[in-house]
Amino acid sequence: MSQKPTPLSGFPELLPAERVVEQQAIDVLRGVFELHGFAGIETRVVEPLDRLAKGGEIDKEIYVLRRALSDPGTEDESSDLDGRVLGLHFDLTVPFARYVLENSGKLEFPFRRYQIQPAWRGERPQIGRYRQFTQADVDIVGQGELAFHHDVEVMRVMVDALAALPLPPVSFQFNNRKLIQGFYRGLGIADVTAAIRVIDKLDKLPAEVVAQQLADQAGASAEQAERCLELASIRVADTSFVEQVRALGVEDDLLDAGLTELAAVVEGCAAAATDRVSVEANLRIARGLDYYTGTVVEIFMSGYEHLKSVGGGGRYDALADDGKNVYPGVGVSFGVSRTLVPLIADGVLSGSRSVPSAVLVAVADEASRPASDAVASALRARGIPCEVAASPQRFGKQIRTAERRGIPFVWFAPTGDDGGHEVKDIRSGDQVAADPSTWSPPDSDVRPHVVLQQ
Amino acid sequence: MSQKPTPLSGFPELLPAERVVEQQAIDVLRGVFELHGFAGIETRVVEPLDRLAKGGEIDKEIYVLRRALSDPGTEDESSDLDGRVLGLHFDLTVPFARYVLENSGKLEFPFRRYQIQPAWRGERPQIGRYRQFTQADVDIVGQGELAFHHDVEVMRVMVDALAALPLPPVSFQFNNRKLIQGFYRGLGIADVTAAIRVIDKLDKLPAEVVAQQLADQAGASAEQAERCLELASIRVADTSFVEQVRALGVEDDLLDAGLTELAAVVEGCAAAATDRVSVEANLRIARGLDYYTGTVVEIFMSGYEHLKSVGGGGRYDALADDGKNVYPGVGVSFGVSRTLVPLIADGVLSGSRSVPSAVLVAVADEASRPASDAVASALRARGIPCEVAASPQRFGKQIRTAERRGIPFVWFAPTGDDGGHEVKDIRSGDQVAADPSTWSPPDSDVRPHVVLQQ
Repeated sequence: MSQKPTPLSGFPELLPAERVVEQQAIDVLRGVFELHGFAGIETRVVEPLDRLAKGGEIDKEIYVLRRALSDPGTEDESSDLDGRVLGLHFDLTVPFARYVLENSGKLEFPFRRYQIQPAWRGERPQIGRYRQFTQADVDIVGQGELAFHHDVEVMRVMVDALAALPLPPVSFQFNNRKLIQGFYRGLGIADVTAAIRVIDKLDKLPAEVVAQQLADQAGASAEQAERCLELASIRVADTSFVEQVRALGVEDDLLDAGLTELAAVVEGCAAAATDRVSVEANLRIARGLDYYTGTVVEIFMSGYEHLKSVGGGGRYDALADDGKNVYPGVGVSFGVSRTLVPLIADGVLSGSRSVPSAVLVAVADEASRPASDAVASALRARGIPCEVAASPQRFGKQIRTAERRGIPFVWFAPTGDDGGHEVKDIRSGDQVAADPSTWSPPDSDVRPHVVLQQ
Repeated sequence: MSQKPTPLSGFPELLPAERVVEQQAIDVLRGVFELHGFAGIETRVVEPLDRLAKGGEIDKEIYVLRRALSDPGTEDESSDLDGRVLGLHFDLTVPFARYVLENSGKLEFPFRRYQIQPAWRGERPQIGRYRQFTQADVDIVGQGELAFHHDVEVMRVMVDALAALPLPPVSFQFNNRKLIQGFYRGLGIADVTAAIRVIDKLDKLPAEVVAQQLADQAGASAEQAERCLELASIRVADTSFVEQVRALGVEDDLLDAGLTELAAVVEGCAAAATDRVSVEANLRIARGLDYYTGTVVEIFMSGYEHLKSVGGGGRYDALADDGKNVYPGVGVSFGVSRTLVPLIADGVLSGSRSVPSAVLVAVADEASRPASDAVASALRARGIPCEVAASPQRFGKQIRTAERRGIPFVWFAPTGDDGGHEVKDIRSGDQVAADPSTWSPPDSDVRPHVVLQQ
């Protein structure tokens, strides 16, 4: 261990003051999720590879485990893992679906859960995309059925949660798969699925190329392609999209259902919007093809559009299925690492200090360390984090130690004949008499806080 | 996914009410660690295999990663991991040592850190030993030097932390490597290291066998072996061990240093002991051979002696070394999973409910759901976790839903002409008029709590 180690690409780690940002964000998310009755669970990090593989196909970004000393592929290797190949989960949805099936007899449905854990993907790292990354997921899952109002509920929870975080402005952009599918169907497009896939490229390709592909790949006429592009251009912060869609003159039951649902989601979430969290209907959002069946959402952050979405989710009619029951769900995921790591790197978010301590208790000499320890104990008994100086240096040096750590207060215990306890606010220089059994720092100084630089 | 999944041996998972136990334990540990000025960090879960290997030897319990689709051992596999084989960490000490070296220029020493994370070992699972397990570590690390008083400090932190947890009685059993080594040296034992290794077997072998092995393996005379066994039999809850050791008539400088240190640790920690957390000097504790250099501790839990220790740690003179500086440290680790999973399985610890909600807001009919949502918002605004009923069943059914989840209160919003809001404590059956903007449950009902059954 005599070589200085270097970071591993794609596995970001935080310094203590940076970890304050992440830890407090997780605390805030958890607090909001729990206020809404979501139970926290944690799943093991591994799943059998066959469960991680989608439709039998193994995505190459999965990390699988083997014992260091075993021969790959032999009995010896697999027997250690109960005869199964295990991989690290690449999201929190697959393990949640498995947890629901495994414990279905012991859970109360509809089951509200949140889960804040890392996941792993063996991808080439880039800004906002890491090989190990923490996500915060909220989902509501039903047994057999799940009423639509839970779509509004779960999306509002995430609006409330992100509104409680110190972040640059974020925008929830909602759409509804029924709306898109119904519109295309009502329009008479030959291949609805292909049309959705093509429209999904609108952010990357010019409109005329997309129109051409709609013709080539989805069998759309020029007129139909035009309507598709018009639908995809609708983006409003209220329910006026309903009228705009109606004005396009397409009639379809599924479209009607989608419009009603999207209006309810936008209305419900807009009621929780703030000056930093906005809510929009954006009829271009498709969010994949094979998974979502109603509400879909992507979350974007102002100034960080290059991260693509910082979160997303939607309604899926079959999160899981055990042959006896189907488990529909609706949920949304926030990329904790994807969002915070770039913000921390850019200095947008920082922790106010590198230690929890609000007070450094100075030590006059080693013989009086017990007196300093007693002060610390008295402060801790009242919930004030503190540390005792490591060595009895000159007080000026001890104050500079506090400064370097960002500790706002230094405490001086009496050293015999020189009176009583005193505490110094090292920012202002003010030093006052204080009693360790009653003095408290201002509330804002008790814990490190997160600073948002704009 | 149409098959009911089964648990994976060695990867325990918790149901929501059980997770309350673990989450609250982690919160309590973290709270105490932070009160003492320890900064929380989180390290990535992977380390290069050469760093996990001790002295070049790979312990077979390490799980290494490979990409699912790569050919093991090829360029393709390793290039994805920056050309290095990565393994899951098997403790939190190795990653912490690496973190300290990697960030030494950015950390303030002495550096106090806590870390609560899972670790992995590919061992055969048994009660208290899992393949994935969460640990809570506190360490203080110095650059170049670390004063002895930090030994007392860090051990006291863990005493305070475990005293704050709802656990069966735990016992901190301290010893000191200087004391043992100095005693054996002063006694004139030929091979001190071998003697320590042999004495470490006292829990498994009869005293006469150990005495014989001391003769055979450490070159001890019968008289010396007798003294070793006498030393190992000393176990007291105060500093009277100093006199007992002196009475054995061995003189050695290192022994003196060890006695002084152990007395200071026992005295410092005994001051924090409670009726549930005891502190002892137990001169049989050795805790491995090649790592610790002074203070050592093992933590045991009453009624759970079969788990062996539930925690342990000590002083190491070289946690890390970068060629320029050596980083001495002292720390102690608590086995969160090792302790809690068996206690939960035995019903000793349980969560009071499976959801965070203190209140279920009933729904009279779908048309009045917004009124119920408004009640929930008003309660949440004052920090009261709640959920709104999923469907407008008969109120009796809604009350039974609350009962099954362990939610103590059900709220009834007015449905028109029948007066005002009412809230029912479903345990007592008491139902009273209440205002959603002012009513609060008793403090003890706001959050789920942990129940200790004895």
